[in-house]
Amino acid sequence: MAKKFMSMRNLRFLLYEVFDVVSLTRHAYYGQYDRKTLDMVLQAASELAERLLWPCFQEMDRNPPELADDTVRVHPVVKTMMKEFGNGGWITTTVPETLDGQQLPHLVSDTCQLIFSSANYSASVYPGLTDGAARLIESFGSKALYDAYVPKMRSGLWQGTMALTEPEAGSSLADITTTAEPTDNGYYKIRGQKVFISAGDHDAVENVVHLMLAKITGAPAGVKGISLFVVPKKRIIEGGELVPNDVATSGIFHKLGYRGCPITQLSIGDKDDCRGYLVGKPHHGLMYMFQMMNEARIGVGMGATAVATAAYYASLEYAKTRKQGRKVSEKDPSRPQVPIIEHPDVKRMLLFQRAVIEGALSLLLQCSKYADLQKVCNNDEKERYALLLDLLTPVAKTYPSEMGILSISQGLQCLGGSGYCDDYPLEQYYRDARINPIHEGTTGIHGMDLLGRKVIMKNGKASELFLAEVRATIEEARKFPRLEPYAHDLSEGLGKLVRVTSHLVGISQHKGPEHFLADATLYLELFGIISVAWQWLLQAIAVQKALEKELPTGEQNFYQGKFYAFRYFFGYELPKIEGLIKRLANSDGLTVEMEEAYFQD
Amino acid sequence: MAKKFMSMRNLRFLLYEVFDVVSLTRHAYYGQYDRKTLDMVLQAASELAERLLWPCFQEMDRNPPELADDTVRVHPVVKTMMKEFGNGGWITTTVPETLDGQQLPHLVSDTCQLIFSSANYSASVYPGLTDGAARLIESFGSKALYDAYVPKMRSGLWQGTMALTEPEAGSSLADITTTAEPTDNGYYKIRGQKVFISAGDHDAVENVVHLMLAKITGAPAGVKGISLFVVPKKRIIEGGELVPNDVATSGIFHKLGYRGCPITQLSIGDKDDCRGYLVGKPHHGLMYMFQMMNEARIGVGMGATAVATAAYYASLEYAKTRKQGRKVSEKDPSRPQVPIIEHPDVKRMLLFQRAVIEGALSLLLQCSKYADLQKVCNNDEKERYALLLDLLTPVAKTYPSEMGILSISQGLQCLGGSGYCDDYPLEQYYRDARINPIHEGTTGIHGMDLLGRKVIMKNGKASELFLAEVRATIEEARKFPRLEPYAHDLSEGLGKLVRVTSHLVGISQHKGPEHFLADATLYLELFGIISVAWQWLLQAIAVQKALEKELPTGEQNFYQGKFYAFRYFFGYELPKIEGLIKRLANSDGLTVEMEEAYFQD
Repeated sequence: MAKKFMSMRNLRFLLYEVFDVVSLTRHAYYGQYDRKTLDMVLQAASELAERLLWPCFQEMDRNPPELADDTVRVHPVVKTMMKEFGNGGWITTTVPETLDGQQLPHLVSDTCQLIFSSANYSASVYPGLTDGAARLIESFGSKALYDAYVPKMRSGLWQGTMALTEPEAGSSLADITTTAEPTDNGYYKIRGQKVFISAGDHDAVENVVHLMLAKITGAPAGVKGISLFVVPKKRIIEGGELVPNDVATSGIFHKLGYRGCPITQLSIGDKDDCRGYLVGKPHHGLMYMFQMMNEARIGVGMGATAVATAAYYASLEYAKTRKQGRKVSEKDPSRPQVPIIEHPDVKRMLLFQRAVIEGALSLLLQCSKYADLQKVCNNDEKERYALLLDLLTPVAKTYPSEMGILSISQGLQCLGGSGYCDDYPLEQYYRDARINPIHEGTTGIHGMDLLGRKVIMKNGKASELFLAEVRATIEEARKFPRLEPYAHDLSEGLGKLVRVTSHLVGISQHKGPEHFLADATLYLELFGIISVAWQWLLQAIAVQKALEKELPTGEQNFYQGKFYAFRYFFGYELPKIEGLIKRLANSDGLTVEMEEAYFQD
Repeated sequence: MAKKFMSMRNLRFLLYEVFDVVSLTRHAYYGQYDRKTLDMVLQAASELAERLLWPCFQEMDRNPPELADDTVRVHPVVKTMMKEFGNGGWITTTVPETLDGQQLPHLVSDTCQLIFSSANYSASVYPGLTDGAARLIESFGSKALYDAYVPKMRSGLWQGTMALTEPEAGSSLADITTTAEPTDNGYYKIRGQKVFISAGDHDAVENVVHLMLAKITGAPAGVKGISLFVVPKKRIIEGGELVPNDVATSGIFHKLGYRGCPITQLSIGDKDDCRGYLVGKPHHGLMYMFQMMNEARIGVGMGATAVATAAYYASLEYAKTRKQGRKVSEKDPSRPQVPIIEHPDVKRMLLFQRAVIEGALSLLLQCSKYADLQKVCNNDEKERYALLLDLLTPVAKTYPSEMGILSISQGLQCLGGSGYCDDYPLEQYYRDARINPIHEGTTGIHGMDLLGRKVIMKNGKASELFLAEVRATIEEARKFPRLEPYAHDLSEGLGKLVRVTSHLVGISQHKGPEHFLADATLYLELFGIISVAWQWLLQAIAVQKALEKELPTGEQNFYQGKFYAFRYFFGYELPKIEGLIKRLANSDGLTVEMEEAYFQD
């Protein structure tokens, strides 16, 4: 095991120097916090991660959940963790104090998630899902539902899930077939199959509360007929007793990674005795679920960043200690070998990882800040931050997911043959991370969401707001002579993004939606690079400000390292937009016109 | 399991239409073959792969080798396979008939390797290594060594290995510490440790013959003091009996994938009773070993292509059968769902895979053809083909290894959540393939080999020959009006490669080797894209020629599919050179100057 899985110094840099989380405490809603108390929260999260989650990171992978005698057995630490997370308030970090929550800024809460997920991604999913499911009931459910379910979930005694996917309805939620038959007793009878339900059943909790999509008898076809239900594994009868609710786990999936968390297949209502409780209004289920889905998408981005962060520190530790070879200018083979971190190609692989993980984290925390500002600002501003968050959600989900895999792969590569062996944790990170471009919407889905929906919504208003944000950063950067060339490069890149977007909108008008969206995945990639370049420029401004002061060597080194990682991004990653722009400007309809018959088998 | 792991139609296209293997049979050395007999060889390889290797592809992964009671137990099929391969002449495909070999063109022999490796990569490594080790003895060993070892190896009774890597000498072979102490009895006493030795010990064979690097007592430091030895697991005593030779397997590695083949750690001479037999002259070991290493590098490229090929067909089968969603222009949710292959983004992922695997295979077979021509041409021409093969070896090893991983990842992505689960083979391909950028020289090593050695050797003669080859293809393509724009694009790309190479050579002169080679990995990536674009243009010429004739629908579809894959490469992959060129032209020395202290931990 490596010694370190994240950098508290970097988290403080982002929170205090880049995003100025303390400025939020000027708003009454966050007024009970100050830098000292926020630091304490981070410290507590770090200690919890180190004490409880990190030590069983490999163990949970090697002893994955098992389904036997109708019970999904998970690693014993899950039970301890859920209780500690419940008691410690880690499932209620952003819940208002009036509802017994911590009322923390998202900036800090999401940073804590980074800490937990980098210590042990699989473990961090259990409380994370429970948090999202409880909030969904809080937002849209009745008081009776809230009272019956939410306190138990938030105390870590009951697991929450999101139960959307079905065997024949994965990316296409319009096609779910789980049914909800109304009864005269206030509940619905639920029947159907759900697959790929994370933490969908396990023995570390007393009950599992599914936030489940189903269609009420006679509902309209497609997404307009989807309703949201609370479907518990065990329902509550009079006197508070729990009895089985006819939700059976028919299987668990054996997966490449992310093995500490069971992904289940559920059979619902096989005995015609499953009761579901409607959340909100009929047929509004998908709209409600989007709250949890959007949170979960940011959560996946954060998890992806976290796993890649832990992988980076493991590869860094190896690179500093492993001796191999000599400088290419050293001709004397009798000279001692040097640590591989002295080889430029190894430094390149390490810098690539930093450029990805620290850039991705910055983008995610930018989203957290928008969520915070949305909460505390006045009504006019609310829409602004909501639109920015909406626009950036597919980017903040996908960039870390896709680039995280490449980042971990470079980490593994630093270790050579050892990276391929399970004596080192890199191979596990490599397996764990591969889920991220798939769950909570595949990369392809997010490409279409970004280009086909977000960029053009409200006549491009969100895009305009985004451009204004990036341009403001560019202007600010221009005040620092060392940043001028980078500000220039980003400005050029932004101009290209704008032009290619116009070009694609033109395609949409002339050739229709198939051609418009054919390369949406590449557009998302382009948008991701520009967004992360923006975040690196923001970080570089903070670095320049810090370097204006006298600093001890360790701090000097921290900022120098940051600046090199920033330069790496602009030198090696930003140029990738050239190829993407060239392709996106082509629009020859290649993938639309390619016929199935041409794929010989 | 998917139904198909490779396309015989595509292999025939490459062999007969692109590389015209039949033309080789005009040379006396290959005169015993014709199209019919070559077809029979391919058919036999395909049947063997389907009958013996393919059925145990998953089984070998799930029941990896175990070390117990000093024995490495492997899947029982390995024993059957080694015998069948030995008896069937599959370990001697390119061995001259005078040495009881098949004397097949490399083009066909390497294509057979593609077939075996796509059916079951791990299994294919055992005979592949044995072939290379036997040839090394044949090339440089004494007749006595040949007689004692090679026939047993080529009959599949004994395993051959390459034993280079040591705990403290991975990429840096200069630092091996295994020693060879001369005796008066014609053998050397060997002592040392070797790690990561593929098929280094197992119970499917009677004996294991290591082609091992060691340093003779008093040898010069560095690579100039390395000698090559035959070090058998069991040595032969009078009467032909085999007795233990003090080579102990001290461990096997638990790996991410490629699990069907044991990777071993060897302790040699612990009891001071290990005998090694010198191959060729003292201190010439590395030069000899390069024969096997170069073959093995091409072999890794072929293996990487093979695994990605099998992954492509598995994802294609899924995409044709899995129904999900509707066209984006379809607004009626009550219409049936369509197979996902109808979605442009899925076609893009499939075309990406084809562009990679069929392009990579073409490049590898180009190398095979150079190897064949080298054998049969006159002396002047020999150097020409040797130089081309030398130059392209790091490219043909690395492009398939690096891009194969991305290709398989896109294959996995086509399956969504199912791709992440072991009900489908994609997750195994994803794991198996990750070894390829590591073994037989990491990607970083090959970058330095290409730029620091191959491109500049003999005053750039190999580079000039390469440019002439590509330019000849461009000229040929210009005869077909449909290919003109692509010929133009490749010509532009080639010009950029030439200019950036000059620029880097200038850096070498002004700033020294560290700066020169700092981005060698990116240079290799650039070189790979240009090389594979060249190969796609070659294929497109063959397509245009074929389409001039009347063809049945199935054949029409094959060539149309080829042409789309070709267009995909030029539309989506070739533009990636823009970003690489921009970075390579920068040469700011970022990774040279980045200090270790700046990587905070």
